[in-house]
Amino acid sequence: MPDAHASVLTPSEAIPENAVHVKGPDLSKPIDLVSLLKSYETIGFQATGLARAIEIIEEMREQRENTEQPLTLFLGYTSNLISSGLREIILFLAKNKLVDALVTTAGGVEEDFVKCLGSTILGNFHLRGADLRKKGLNRIGNLLVPNSNYCAFEDWIMPILDQMVAEQEGPEKTKWTPSTVINRLGKEINNEESVYYWCWKNDIPVFCPALTDGSLGDMMYFHTYKADPAPLNLDIVGDIRKLNDMSIKAKQAGMIVLGGGRNGADYAVYINTGQEYDGSDSGARPDEAVSWGKIRANAQSVKVYADATLVFPLIVASTFGKAHWEANK
Amino acid sequence: MPDAHASVLTPSEAIPENAVHVKGPDLSKPIDLVSLLKSYETIGFQATGLARAIEIIEEMREQRENTEQPLTLFLGYTSNLISSGLREIILFLAKNKLVDALVTTAGGVEEDFVKCLGSTILGNFHLRGADLRKKGLNRIGNLLVPNSNYCAFEDWIMPILDQMVAEQEGPEKTKWTPSTVINRLGKEINNEESVYYWCWKNDIPVFCPALTDGSLGDMMYFHTYKADPAPLNLDIVGDIRKLNDMSIKAKQAGMIVLGGGRNGADYAVYINTGQEYDGSDSGARPDEAVSWGKIRANAQSVKVYADATLVFPLIVASTFGKAHWEANK
Amino acid sequence: MPDAHASVLTPSEAIPENAVHVKGPDLSKPIDLVSLLKSYETIGFQATGLARAIEIIEEMREQRENTEQPLTLFLGYTSNLISSGLREIILFLAKNKLVDALVTTAGGVEEDFVKCLGSTILGNFHLRGADLRKKGLNRIGNLLVPNSNYCAFEDWIMPILDQMVAEQEGPEKTKWTPSTVINRLGKEINNEESVYYWCWKNDIPVFCPALTDGSLGDMMYFHTYKADPAPLNLDIVGDIRKLNDMSIKAKQAGMIVLGGGRNGADYAVYINTGQEYDGSDSGARPDEAVSWGKIRANAQSVKVYADATLVFPLIVASTFGKAHWEANK
Amino acid sequence: MPDAHASVLTPSEAIPENAVHVKGPDLSKPIDLVSLLKSYETIGFQATGLARAIEIIEEMREQRENTEQPLTLFLGYTSNLISSGLREIILFLAKNKLVDALVTTAGGVEEDFVKCLGSTILGNFHLRGADLRKKGLNRIGNLLVPNSNYCAFEDWIMPILDQMVAEQEGPEKTKWTPSTVINRLGKEINNEESVYYWCWKNDIPVFCPALTDGSLGDMMYFHTYKADPAPLNLDIVGDIRKLNDMSIKAKQAGMIVLGGGRNGADYAVYINTGQEYDGSDSGARPDEAVSWGKIRANAQSVKVYADATLVFPLIVASTFGKAHWEANK
Repeated sequence: MPDAHASVLTPSEAIPENAVHVKGPDLSKPIDLVSLLKSYETIGFQATGLARAIEIIEEMREQRENTEQPLTLFLGYTSNLISSGLREIILFLAKNKLVDALVTTAGGVEEDFVKCLGSTILGNFHLRGADLRKKGLNRIGNLLVPNSNYCAFEDWIMPILDQMVAEQEGPEKTKWTPSTVINRLGKEINNEESVYYWCWKNDIPVFCPALTDGSLGDMMYFHTYKADPAPLNLDIVGDIRKLNDMSIKAKQAGMIVLGGGRNGADYAVYINTGQEYDGSDSGARPDEAVSWGKIRANAQSVKVYADATLVFPLIVASTFGKAHWEANK
Repeated sequence: MPDAHASVLTPSEAIPENAVHVKGPDLSKPIDLVSLLKSYETIGFQATGLARAIEIIEEMREQRENTEQPLTLFLGYTSNLISSGLREIILFLAKNKLVDALVTTAGGVEEDFVKCLGSTILGNFHLRGADLRKKGLNRIGNLLVPNSNYCAFEDWIMPILDQMVAEQEGPEKTKWTPSTVINRLGKEINNEESVYYWCWKNDIPVFCPALTDGSLGDMMYFHTYKADPAPLNLDIVGDIRKLNDMSIKAKQAGMIVLGGGRNGADYAVYINTGQEYDGSDSGARPDEAVSWGKIRANAQSVKVYADATLVFPLIVASTFGKAHWEANK
Repeated sequence: MPDAHASVLTPSEAIPENAVHVKGPDLSKPIDLVSLLKSYETIGFQATGLARAIEIIEEMREQRENTEQPLTLFLGYTSNLISSGLREIILFLAKNKLVDALVTTAGGVEEDFVKCLGSTILGNFHLRGADLRKKGLNRIGNLLVPNSNYCAFEDWIMPILDQMVAEQEGPEKTKWTPSTVINRLGKEINNEESVYYWCWKNDIPVFCPALTDGSLGDMMYFHTYKADPAPLNLDIVGDIRKLNDMSIKAKQAGMIVLGGGRNGADYAVYINTGQEYDGSDSGARPDEAVSWGKIRANAQSVKVYADATLVFPLIVASTFGKAHWEANK
Repeated sequence: MPDAHASVLTPSEAIPENAVHVKGPDLSKPIDLVSLLKSYETIGFQATGLARAIEIIEEMREQRENTEQPLTLFLGYTSNLISSGLREIILFLAKNKLVDALVTTAGGVEEDFVKCLGSTILGNFHLRGADLRKKGLNRIGNLLVPNSNYCAFEDWIMPILDQMVAEQEGPEKTKWTPSTVINRLGKEINNEESVYYWCWKNDIPVFCPALTDGSLGDMMYFHTYKADPAPLNLDIVGDIRKLNDMSIKAKQAGMIVLGGGRNGADYAVYINTGQEYDGSDSGARPDEAVSWGKIRANAQSVKVYADATLVFPLIVASTFGKAHWEANK
């Protein structure tokens, strides 16, 4: 809405021939998922960002199969996404060896195992905490996890912790790190519904430096008393060596970060709702990581401002999913 | 992540049999758009909200064809969505008479006509205002509108304003309101790419009380000098009468509000990124409207926290679009 | 956190001598409000934005008293802020003639009058709509307005609407516009607690093109039936002429926009929580308005990302308030 | 804005006598910081939340001096806040022993030390990453950190890491955990501008389970090659034991969480911009932690939706600051 009389507006420069004209999809005829999302490119706002994210991720997917310079793909995600149904999307990626490493938080690890032992159920955002407390239900956004699931988790994990300490103190002198613990738990759970079962099976490392920062930490805490005077030692320097070695050896690197972003690569897609204005890690745009040298200046990157549950299923279905379906026709 | 030793946790109540278990879609086999979005129901967070929005809108669609108590469907949207490719989605709804009234802002009206006279093109969120100003380009998020489009808009509209004043002052003594002005402009544009052309053609009223609050207002401003001493009179009381009559006579009412929310009905879906915590209109949840009696206490309503460009195409494709395709097979 | 071995990092350029070093306030000794807010300049993130907003608004305040080129100050705000205690801050500005024009929404007008007839009270964000509905309480964020206040508002306004129609149809043939209606209501309320009483008293125009878009619109709607066949005519073209004339004649213009932003001037401060990424009006940064020529490229402008209730009292206290206190010592 | 004729509105219940009437401060007379913030209680929206946060934190402050049941106060904050000028606010709290433990992220640790070796300077949110990269400047929101600061950090820390490994491998067989490393670094920096110097001096533990998740992790990574075959071992189980012991032994516990929230206590104040709708940790309301038993159902808690840089200086000045000034008059 120009300020002054349009006739005195400075004339606009000629629009470049390669300008992309804003246009939405034509819904008068049937349109499939992939075509619909392709049409997002010219819708503008975040729709354009989503189309770009799909394009970049499709290229990551193809570059993983580049025989000369295979891309190493890192997938990062927050705890709440494993609590949500995105767990099954991540499982699809791990089961079919479509990613090379996972990076997550403590809850992102333990909630996967907890779900093998009891369901997480739908609630809503406005249930009162005090009421839920009485019922033994724990809320995560609009999801609910019964206390009994955590009891089952404790029963399951305590003997495994015993065994891990025995191996640490025994002749093998095992040095545990978060990633080796997760690998062991993935083996122990022995359940095809677990993301980390597939990571163990497919040799996909899972990094989680703050593994004690949740329920698993509470279990380990109680276990230190049980194991006195030789508690479990969980070394995070070993994992930073493994993770950084992996990054440095990668011919090309790609990163998909769901629900909280940092770091980067040659290709980077961030999907979260964080805003830039408070200077937070998760709010930062990929371009901030360019200043840090975490993403190359000429890398392909995009941030989609959305709850990952809304867009990640669409993205995976129209990239990895589509390729998988075609390969398995 | 419970605070205390799991073994002393209050046992959780038995999970009700009808509890909905959180589960994501299985991407190991091909899945189409409608099925994928159906699976969102059990993903949690906003995915569950999107599935609910689709369910409610599908019911709105069916209730419009209820012969006894037909539902009157209002669609509200902000200016930026007409600037984006959602314009074509709204056009699909208007062209096929799938909505009963539109409610928008000044920019939501004028940008549709401006687009008939020149393209809006893709830019990005970080182009510098001063640089764009020199080039005669106006930015709306990641979209750009050339000044020349507004010049063309002025050339087009001035003679129409002359004519409207002539009718106002002539024997017919036409009393103009925003909705009758928009209707007239829709007829005059005579262009099948215009949303308001189809609204005129299909007799769908378009309400916009603050029609002067943008470029069109600037045109009208200049025109008052041209038309002295008998400027255009644009009465907003006439329109509130028309809109409220329409609401009151509706057997059932449904409302879809994109990009800024208020009001409600028997069915209400809000889609925007506004947050509740600042007490703003657009941030409010539908439940706030229940307290005002704007939405019935037992109405079906949901708010999806997302940029409408991400989800509205999916929603329309899998409700109105799907029904339309089936009817036209 | 740089990616590679620090010793191979490209050396950083010498920091310019005028670089501003990040530093927080020293709380070891007493610090007053103005000094504390001054220290925000070097805190970073939004604190720096708040310090900048105060600096710009202080300059607006001084430029209003510039005898050669007095600045015309426009204050815009959304409805919810009149519902909140910011009403008293806005009243302070209007009562002491510290602003030249107000621009608001329908609720921003009517809630001021409603508050003269009954209190708005504190509630919380999570009260259930259905419960409130039964109690006759309407929620606005964490505020509640009893139905009885609106009943009182109706009783008060109906005879005034009668009178306005009488003047419209009588020999004076009054042509009503939203701003003249608000001016009249300000006079009629005759209550020093009303913002618009002071606007009437101090001849400060109040613009609100969509004046029918709320409770007042409902009153006018019912009144059209009462007044048949000569309903109130409320012309918005007259007001756009008055507002644009005022803008064009201003030697300098300043704009403070709370809770939803658009337009601009030589000086512009926006305060709201809207995000840019959905291309919305309220989310836009001032720089977007530069592309439109609404704000001069070399204008002073800032957007503070915050709920206005948090920061506007601080800003007014440390600019207009401070000057007022000193003048009245 | 009620939907129907006000005269048919259900009458509202009598307003309880103890209802709090919404009212803003009177700026016609001078008002100091504490009184102004006290007036926020009745402003509504987030202003009411800020007043509540101050009230709760003032009570936490007093309960720390309760001789029978002294409160243990935990302060959590994200990395970006140490980068900002909030570092000096946190330093004030640590230096004067006003908190009992700190919980932060890797960047929240290392940026404090880096700042002792070189300044962080103000930039803006829109500087281009590629340009900054060339200049050796790293961006954090609107702040910039020169590469040379990280080089200085590396030069400083490497010999300390050598020494730590020597103690690990020597007769003392030191078992390092993140908190003991931070304590040692605080001693080594020997600089009164460092938060962690004061934590060492005042014996305030600092917890940071993912200490390798940043620049310090990169240093440790390189150091593992230098220290082969006996790299530093950094055990996180030891710290979860120390932190949980501290929580369990606390007679009362209070938690202030800036910029990202979880956990809780008898008193809890969260300040961040995260939204609930994506089910994220930082977006969660304190009431979610009630369901987890992390906050008691009858605890005092509030979340203020704001960038912490805007409100935390005000809060500390009007609680701990005020008490400190009075004690030191």
